[in-house]
Amino acid sequence: LKAENIKAFRNLFLELHPTDQVELFVSFDQSQRQRVYECLSPAEFADIFQGLELEQQKEYITELDQTFAIAMFNSMSADDLADFLGELPDIMAETYLNNMGQKDAQDIKNLLAYPDETAGAIMTTEFIALATKDKVSHVLQRLKEQAPDAETIYYLYVVNEQRKLVGVVSLRDLIVARDDQLVEEIMSTRVVSVSVLDDQEEVADVIKKYDFLAVPVISKQGKLVGIVTVDDVMDVVEEEVTEDIGEISAARGAVDLQLSSFDAAKKRAPWILMLAFLGLISAGVIGQFEETLEAVARLAVFIPLIMGSAGNTGTQTLAVVVRSLALGTLDRVGVGKLLKRELGTGVMLGLICSLVLVLTVPVIYDGDLVLGVIVASSLLAALSVATVIGAIIPLIINKLRIDPAVASGPFITTLNDIIALLIYFSIATALLQYL
Amino acid sequence: LKAENIKAFRNLFLELHPTDQVELFVSFDQSQRQRVYECLSPAEFADIFQGLELEQQKEYITELDQTFAIAMFNSMSADDLADFLGELPDIMAETYLNNMGQKDAQDIKNLLAYPDETAGAIMTTEFIALATKDKVSHVLQRLKEQAPDAETIYYLYVVNEQRKLVGVVSLRDLIVARDDQLVEEIMSTRVVSVSVLDDQEEVADVIKKYDFLAVPVISKQGKLVGIVTVDDVMDVVEEEVTEDIGEISAARGAVDLQLSSFDAAKKRAPWILMLAFLGLISAGVIGQFEETLEAVARLAVFIPLIMGSAGNTGTQTLAVVVRSLALGTLDRVGVGKLLKRELGTGVMLGLICSLVLVLTVPVIYDGDLVLGVIVASSLLAALSVATVIGAIIPLIINKLRIDPAVASGPFITTLNDIIALLIYFSIATALLQYL
Repeated sequence: LKAENIKAFRNLFLELHPTDQVELFVSFDQSQRQRVYECLSPAEFADIFQGLELEQQKEYITELDQTFAIAMFNSMSADDLADFLGELPDIMAETYLNNMGQKDAQDIKNLLAYPDETAGAIMTTEFIALATKDKVSHVLQRLKEQAPDAETIYYLYVVNEQRKLVGVVSLRDLIVARDDQLVEEIMSTRVVSVSVLDDQEEVADVIKKYDFLAVPVISKQGKLVGIVTVDDVMDVVEEEVTEDIGEISAARGAVDLQLSSFDAAKKRAPWILMLAFLGLISAGVIGQFEETLEAVARLAVFIPLIMGSAGNTGTQTLAVVVRSLALGTLDRVGVGKLLKRELGTGVMLGLICSLVLVLTVPVIYDGDLVLGVIVASSLLAALSVATVIGAIIPLIINKLRIDPAVASGPFITTLNDIIALLIYFSIATALLQYL
Repeated sequence: LKAENIKAFRNLFLELHPTDQVELFVSFDQSQRQRVYECLSPAEFADIFQGLELEQQKEYITELDQTFAIAMFNSMSADDLADFLGELPDIMAETYLNNMGQKDAQDIKNLLAYPDETAGAIMTTEFIALATKDKVSHVLQRLKEQAPDAETIYYLYVVNEQRKLVGVVSLRDLIVARDDQLVEEIMSTRVVSVSVLDDQEEVADVIKKYDFLAVPVISKQGKLVGIVTVDDVMDVVEEEVTEDIGEISAARGAVDLQLSSFDAAKKRAPWILMLAFLGLISAGVIGQFEETLEAVARLAVFIPLIMGSAGNTGTQTLAVVVRSLALGTLDRVGVGKLLKRELGTGVMLGLICSLVLVLTVPVIYDGDLVLGVIVASSLLAALSVATVIGAIIPLIINKLRIDPAVASGPFITTLNDIIALLIYFSIATALLQYL
């Protein structure tokens, strides 16, 4: 590559926003990527590497020579680097860490020691801590020097001699303050913090609730050990939504396009099989009424309608409850009121459906009024029960802190199926003599 | 109320974080709320009022006297006030606006003119704009005065003489710069902006993608007219997730705990009825095979199993596709690869289920091997089709930009039900002589 070309490429490429650099880089083939490695400094490439997904990082790291990689690691922010190294085989991570600066390597090792999905695992240690007696003018001077390295300078946390968190100052407060004021005069002492072992979802909730740009993380002893910034939390929210959708659709861990057919089938099969065995219970229920069925085969015709309506009504209720639990609105309304509301809704939906069908079924089945009455009254009963089941099951699961997957859509639907079929065939058997 | 009490209450209450003040206020009864109005200044209460939900704002505004309310409005940020006034009857909003300061009122009226759910509707007009020739030291001096009023001072946007957006400076850049540098020397000219009529979801995507704290909003003529901050976008993300969950569960607009049973039933009934009519199609499919059913009634026993398994498999695929569309990962992988992956997964899931059932069914039904073969081969075919349907339908809907509710879980499930039943009864009818 000629020096001229390198310069032209750098001018064009570095002009882009880092996010756009990442997008472009990902679209490159291997020889184009090689050119990027040659033209950019390790520090410049670190910005791109940090923007890649973990899978992509693992792929491209093999294309870098070790010296370049180590230099790049030294320019990466500690939390992103820890996330990446945590994904590598221990022996590889160890090799990289041994070749890095000792202080940085120790920071990373500390971060790697926290359990997955905790505040400690997603926090960064690159924050600026102030002392209570610092002068505003000195702090601003210090920021001039340290700003390029810190993850955020918009919130500065104040610690005492024991490094315990005692206050917070926003850069806005600093700008507005007089130069000769002390940090303790302008700091707010009502600091909301999270503990290093708190779940990442709780951290996200705190940041959302208070509209924070960052939240401090403290150790068991109350010492300030890191911060979590709002952009990290955005990623957590994405992850959690993916998890929730996996739960709701009984596809936990398999909502990922990158998996092969085989891996996807392996992860999804247990759910499908478990649900199929629940389906065998439905089969057992119908089996109990085989005599009724043999007498009037056309009863089977309405099985999908009864099952489907009960399942759909329950799913609607599930959506209401899952969303209320996530947004925390249920506490305000109360469980009693929710159940009453849902039962009321179920009865009304049942009435509407049964009214429509008591008229429709006899039209389709040349005046078979009794069949219409059976279908309609089953729907009324089944839909009323379905809303209550759809509300109670997730609430119980949530209360008992059992794995919420058991409350997912397909399980509640299958449960509602069984109850609906039981109701339908019981009513049909009772009225068999009129059919 | 004695002056002493007022002071004690204020000390306690104002010590809290605004978010916690809101939480406490909401838990108060009317007489306690009255005390809050008496003890706090309109500006202090504005912080609480801005933290309430729209429904609560509408309730509590009736408890305030008009002078207090107007003074409070003057202290609120323009975007929050516009959101609130937009919810009131026009005549009430008009009255309030006529009593406010003229400049503020005009700002609000401008905001109210933008269509719902656009960048213009969620942006704020309280931002700080710089000129290219401003000196860093002057900007910092100006920030000292204007910081308390601006929504954010962490990003400052640079405009030319025509008020067109030409650059952006972060407060971090300003702090690090020398006092005598000019804004144009330190500003970044690669500014990402959104247009005033862009959908709020696009605005959220831009902020998430670039990890911004705020994004500038420009008019058709390229003039800077407002900014959207990350905390506003967090609310948008919540709203969108609620909408998505409503779509997936066919409960659009009804995922709200505050609705009465009657209102909830009114919003949910159209979906349930529409799905019930689709259920009548399933009934029609089975009706076609009434002779087969009359000959072998026990075929009906496995209807729930076949339907359920096909439905569940399709729902899993739907979850994968919906999530990929939301995260934008599908473009990278490609539709062809997705369909191949899903078909492969469907075939494997079908093989696993049919293997298990070809052995289970004869055990339950004393050696009825043919029934086992019918159930197993139907499952294999139905599950293979179900994954493809679960992938193709949402993709088509997305491509055609039709209302995505039609691609929601219940609709795809019902479609898969019908196909699965058709397959099951066709195979059963073909093998009828061996049963």
